[in-house]
Amino acid sequence: MSEAGLPFLHNPSSVAIIGASDDPDKIGGRPIAFMRKYGFSGAILPVNPSRATIQGLPAYPDVASLPIVPEVAIIALPGEAAVAAVEACAALGVKGGVVMASGFGETGRPEDLARQHNLVAIAHAGGMRLVGPNSQGLANFGTGTILSFSTMFVEQEPLDGPIGIVSQSGAMCSVPYGLLRRRGLGVRYVHGTGNDADLGVGDLALAVLQDPDIRLLLLYLEDIRDPASLQAAAEQALDRNIPIVAMMGGRSVDGRRAASSHTGALANEQRVVDAFFKRVGIWRAKSMSGMVDTAALYLKDWHPRGRRLAIVSNSGAICVLGADAAADNGLQLTQFTPETSQALTEILPTFATKTNPVDITAALLTDSSLFGKVFPVLAADPGVDAALVGIPVSGKGYDFPRFAADTAEFAERDRKPVVVAIPQEPVARAFREKGLVVFDDEATALAALGQFLHHRELMEEVRRLGPLHNSVKGSPVVRSLSESAALEFLSDRGIPVAPSTLCATSTAAVAAFHSYGDIPVVVKGCPSAATHKSELGLVRLGLSTSDAVASAADDMLEIMSRLELANDGVIVAPMVRGVTEGMIGAHVDAVFGPIVLVGAGGKYVEALDDVQALIPPFDESAALAAIQRLHIAPLLSGVRGEPPTDVEAWARAAVALGELMLDNPAIQSVDVNPLMIGAAFGEPSFGALAVDAVVELA
Amino acid sequence: MSEAGLPFLHNPSSVAIIGASDDPDKIGGRPIAFMRKYGFSGAILPVNPSRATIQGLPAYPDVASLPIVPEVAIIALPGEAAVAAVEACAALGVKGGVVMASGFGETGRPEDLARQHNLVAIAHAGGMRLVGPNSQGLANFGTGTILSFSTMFVEQEPLDGPIGIVSQSGAMCSVPYGLLRRRGLGVRYVHGTGNDADLGVGDLALAVLQDPDIRLLLLYLEDIRDPASLQAAAEQALDRNIPIVAMMGGRSVDGRRAASSHTGALANEQRVVDAFFKRVGIWRAKSMSGMVDTAALYLKDWHPRGRRLAIVSNSGAICVLGADAAADNGLQLTQFTPETSQALTEILPTFATKTNPVDITAALLTDSSLFGKVFPVLAADPGVDAALVGIPVSGKGYDFPRFAADTAEFAERDRKPVVVAIPQEPVARAFREKGLVVFDDEATALAALGQFLHHRELMEEVRRLGPLHNSVKGSPVVRSLSESAALEFLSDRGIPVAPSTLCATSTAAVAAFHSYGDIPVVVKGCPSAATHKSELGLVRLGLSTSDAVASAADDMLEIMSRLELANDGVIVAPMVRGVTEGMIGAHVDAVFGPIVLVGAGGKYVEALDDVQALIPPFDESAALAAIQRLHIAPLLSGVRGEPPTDVEAWARAAVALGELMLDNPAIQSVDVNPLMIGAAFGEPSFGALAVDAVVELA
Repeated sequence: MSEAGLPFLHNPSSVAIIGASDDPDKIGGRPIAFMRKYGFSGAILPVNPSRATIQGLPAYPDVASLPIVPEVAIIALPGEAAVAAVEACAALGVKGGVVMASGFGETGRPEDLARQHNLVAIAHAGGMRLVGPNSQGLANFGTGTILSFSTMFVEQEPLDGPIGIVSQSGAMCSVPYGLLRRRGLGVRYVHGTGNDADLGVGDLALAVLQDPDIRLLLLYLEDIRDPASLQAAAEQALDRNIPIVAMMGGRSVDGRRAASSHTGALANEQRVVDAFFKRVGIWRAKSMSGMVDTAALYLKDWHPRGRRLAIVSNSGAICVLGADAAADNGLQLTQFTPETSQALTEILPTFATKTNPVDITAALLTDSSLFGKVFPVLAADPGVDAALVGIPVSGKGYDFPRFAADTAEFAERDRKPVVVAIPQEPVARAFREKGLVVFDDEATALAALGQFLHHRELMEEVRRLGPLHNSVKGSPVVRSLSESAALEFLSDRGIPVAPSTLCATSTAAVAAFHSYGDIPVVVKGCPSAATHKSELGLVRLGLSTSDAVASAADDMLEIMSRLELANDGVIVAPMVRGVTEGMIGAHVDAVFGPIVLVGAGGKYVEALDDVQALIPPFDESAALAAIQRLHIAPLLSGVRGEPPTDVEAWARAAVALGELMLDNPAIQSVDVNPLMIGAAFGEPSFGALAVDAVVELA
Repeated sequence: MSEAGLPFLHNPSSVAIIGASDDPDKIGGRPIAFMRKYGFSGAILPVNPSRATIQGLPAYPDVASLPIVPEVAIIALPGEAAVAAVEACAALGVKGGVVMASGFGETGRPEDLARQHNLVAIAHAGGMRLVGPNSQGLANFGTGTILSFSTMFVEQEPLDGPIGIVSQSGAMCSVPYGLLRRRGLGVRYVHGTGNDADLGVGDLALAVLQDPDIRLLLLYLEDIRDPASLQAAAEQALDRNIPIVAMMGGRSVDGRRAASSHTGALANEQRVVDAFFKRVGIWRAKSMSGMVDTAALYLKDWHPRGRRLAIVSNSGAICVLGADAAADNGLQLTQFTPETSQALTEILPTFATKTNPVDITAALLTDSSLFGKVFPVLAADPGVDAALVGIPVSGKGYDFPRFAADTAEFAERDRKPVVVAIPQEPVARAFREKGLVVFDDEATALAALGQFLHHRELMEEVRRLGPLHNSVKGSPVVRSLSESAALEFLSDRGIPVAPSTLCATSTAAVAAFHSYGDIPVVVKGCPSAATHKSELGLVRLGLSTSDAVASAADDMLEIMSRLELANDGVIVAPMVRGVTEGMIGAHVDAVFGPIVLVGAGGKYVEALDDVQALIPPFDESAALAAIQRLHIAPLLSGVRGEPPTDVEAWARAAVALGELMLDNPAIQSVDVNPLMIGAAFGEPSFGALAVDAVVELA
């Protein structure tokens, strides 16, 4: 039911305020005062049964008495009165309503949730779309359409600008708005969506993205019930190259509990939420500073090329701390070309550092031209993708307006990202006036730069991977395949599986042993349903004689018979040992659909939680990046003389598993543990082989 | 050569400025202008051969012409002139000198380092102590003794206060000073020590700590060459219950490289530096915000009791984000007593949350008494150690001065730590005026609170552990013991070692096998020096027959003989398998002396870097805390039906190893890998046993 643009919410010809107040500080009074103050050009129609005028405007006793059908209505009435008002508006043909009343779905009480469903049904029956209930309202400072009672517009004077905020929480609408305004940034949209009963964060985000002036979108969420609308917004943003930064409360156990008691939020699995944001190109900020500190960078018309950083400062300490902060934020210090070092040697005093970071030293006090001479040299170095300029000591006695001008020229020359760290307000101001982004210290500056560059790379990756499919969600009724059937199923669908033979008798088992050339084998009982085989004595490893194989097979057939376990016989398989025991798995999330996991294999996988999630489709490169984020990653390049692990084969298996999940909606989960992974070169060179698997089907 | 207090540097009766300038903006002019402006009461004696007066004061052509022997001299001359000035001062009996000239040890050139050594030798010959060279100088705003040329005092008006800053870097002196002043905090000492050729950061820190008004000390370091003086300062701070927060550049590889080119800094091993700070009770801040954001909390006269947090807000979103931030910063959300929940139910509206976090909701807008009613209930709950108050929505229409007064009363009542998160400046100001510590958001507030509470706990731990010994440092000449000798050596010194028998012949080996009751044994060759035994075929596991033992022993004796490896014979030992394979190790750091490591055992210990460092002496509780910081910690409580690991036995072995290192200065390193660790209860119950060890002696 999404309607891109939602023009009636963003630029209506007329707005009725039902429950209008003459007091511009009351909930029913603020939207009127705001719209008049911020230049709303449409009709403002206060509805109040007890007053002839409201804030100097003619008022109407009820919806039916309005002189025209308003395009939008603000419903600033509580409880049942709000429901009645929506009903009256829907009957009249009002296109959109903003319902501010609380006491609906957010209480978690079934009767309140039912009332909310009813509210939406009434609206939809008349073709009316709703924001809320429990909404702080919407604000568009581009048109002055302030359908909101946020007090923050009183505290922080609005300024129209290229940023949109869409938030499920009113407070988390106001807070980023206030902090952005304190930093001097203009904000056009400030939307508090409330309970998302009809139009949700995704719908309003998509609507905001229709505005050609918007260049950055910030979201706050407490749960994701409808990833499709968020995904549509993310795809639109990617088309327009607009970054979306989202903060989602409930990262911790206590946070999720609090979210659930706040809004009845679903307990989205956080690893899956992370994978979803990553897969659609949305950056997930962990804190408010991650949302607002980076905003100024996104608004620059920079052409980022990579994460190789140059650092220049008049303090050696800032060079040291900048290098630390670069490492903390995944930025590499570039190694200068010989030409750059030579040029720096000619410019700088002998005791200055000509490698990266560049310490131009206190010589700056006597030679104000140093920054201006160093910057063109850095600009000419092809290895410099971005720069940090740190000026901890300046002010009186320094020609800092010149430093600011030199830095601005450097930043504008090739549109490479440049961030500045300056603790002194007057000096910082001189740099800001030249259009530069200034932070108090190098750590904050490089955290913001790191986010900006990683986010741009993420957006490129999502462009490469293409859109996410809308997938069938999980089904509660599942049955599991036997190990033998599971391995065959996976093998038929492109997952490499170790050779094995299913045998009904010990004679067949011995024949299979011979067929593999009498090399050591494993014999496993194969019950029809997945069970913990080891505990039942249904696994024997490294058998190397006919007698041992026969006796293992006989024992296992006897055990399964005695336990009345329906079974397919026993599996005989040559022993396979990789360089690394990994894991790949997949399941169908109730909200997000198919999820693929890659992780360290073995029996401790759950306790150690060394697992990364991916949402298919993804490619080998995305899977490799996930594998390299595992805690065991340092082992994969080969340590203590071992060959490097064939991570490409592991990644290919993960990609195949993702495709399999998308192509087979009946599969509920797959667990391949261990996935034996061979050597990237040298022995064993078998790529990656599943040696055990559990597959569950709907 | 430390002299606590260094009164001549902090409150001299007279100061000569050698290289004095008439221009109050020049290096030789600023200290004069500062001292006159900030109330220095002693004599100011400018020395300049070309002027009769300097800034209106009579000037003297040279040191010899001074009317009195100055107690302190600022040497604001470059290079050789500085050396000559120190020589003249030392000859005259000047007690202390501050040498601002650069071009000494920090260049890394041998000739400059020699010049620096010479400078110190000349000073010491006359009984004179030096700060610098390459020093920005010292400032004491308690006495107006500003022996510093920092421009930051021009940019940020000084205010005397209870904070001291001592930094090896001038810039990193100015930056925290400027940021603290911008936050309205007063700073008394601002000491830039430079090259630490004579008096270093530790000495000056100790001197600052003699001042009874100082309540917080901030340090910046690029290397630690002399931990003893830093340790003395830390012990003094602990005696006075004064927190020290240190930032040390060079956490990253690039940062260390930059530090080395900046000041010729030593490459201290960062894990050991962390262990040192922890062991002496100094908090290591990772960023400037960690240094300055927490300062206001340290200055409160709070009585912290634990880390159980209550969160109160008028926004559910802040409750969610506060819970997330609590988890990020190691704070627990307390579970309210039934009495607390009952009392909250009586106070708050039905739709408000009565569990922790407490969401008092927008009802605050109509009932300004809610905070004032909720706080006494929280104060009465014994499970509330500290609180976060988050007010994201307030301002006009809210009685926020009352909220501020209520919060202040709550904070003062039991002196429990209370932090506040408010994004709106006017509201925040009302809270600050009531003496509360206010942050922009909950994440920053709880990061600061987390640091404060963890640091106070750390200080308690160090009180419990007692002082650190001054230990002998490493020796380059080492010899290693054979495995058998190493195990015996450790066993004799209190480290539990698995039983084993050293055998000269295969007959003796078989006899040993029988002596253990014919249970499976390992046979290992025992070369006199540590080698990689497995690679040479000198380890065979799980031998369970006399023949197998005899043949293994014969083979190994033959191999060692063929390879001309001096050896002690072969070791026969029963197979021991713990619940967990751990590691303990120790070595002597060139700067910090003995270091003990605990970590995950096995051959990947280096690649996975799952190791924690401790500086002895420490107790079982400190060792347990280090073990619980390991990545493998989740496995130690017992997963998949396995018994919990006997972590106490592991911790005791680590403590014993620490004592062994302190008692035996000849030991250079010990590596016990694996340390087999049994079950905390159930089988195997052998505690922790070393089954292999390498010991190196000087």
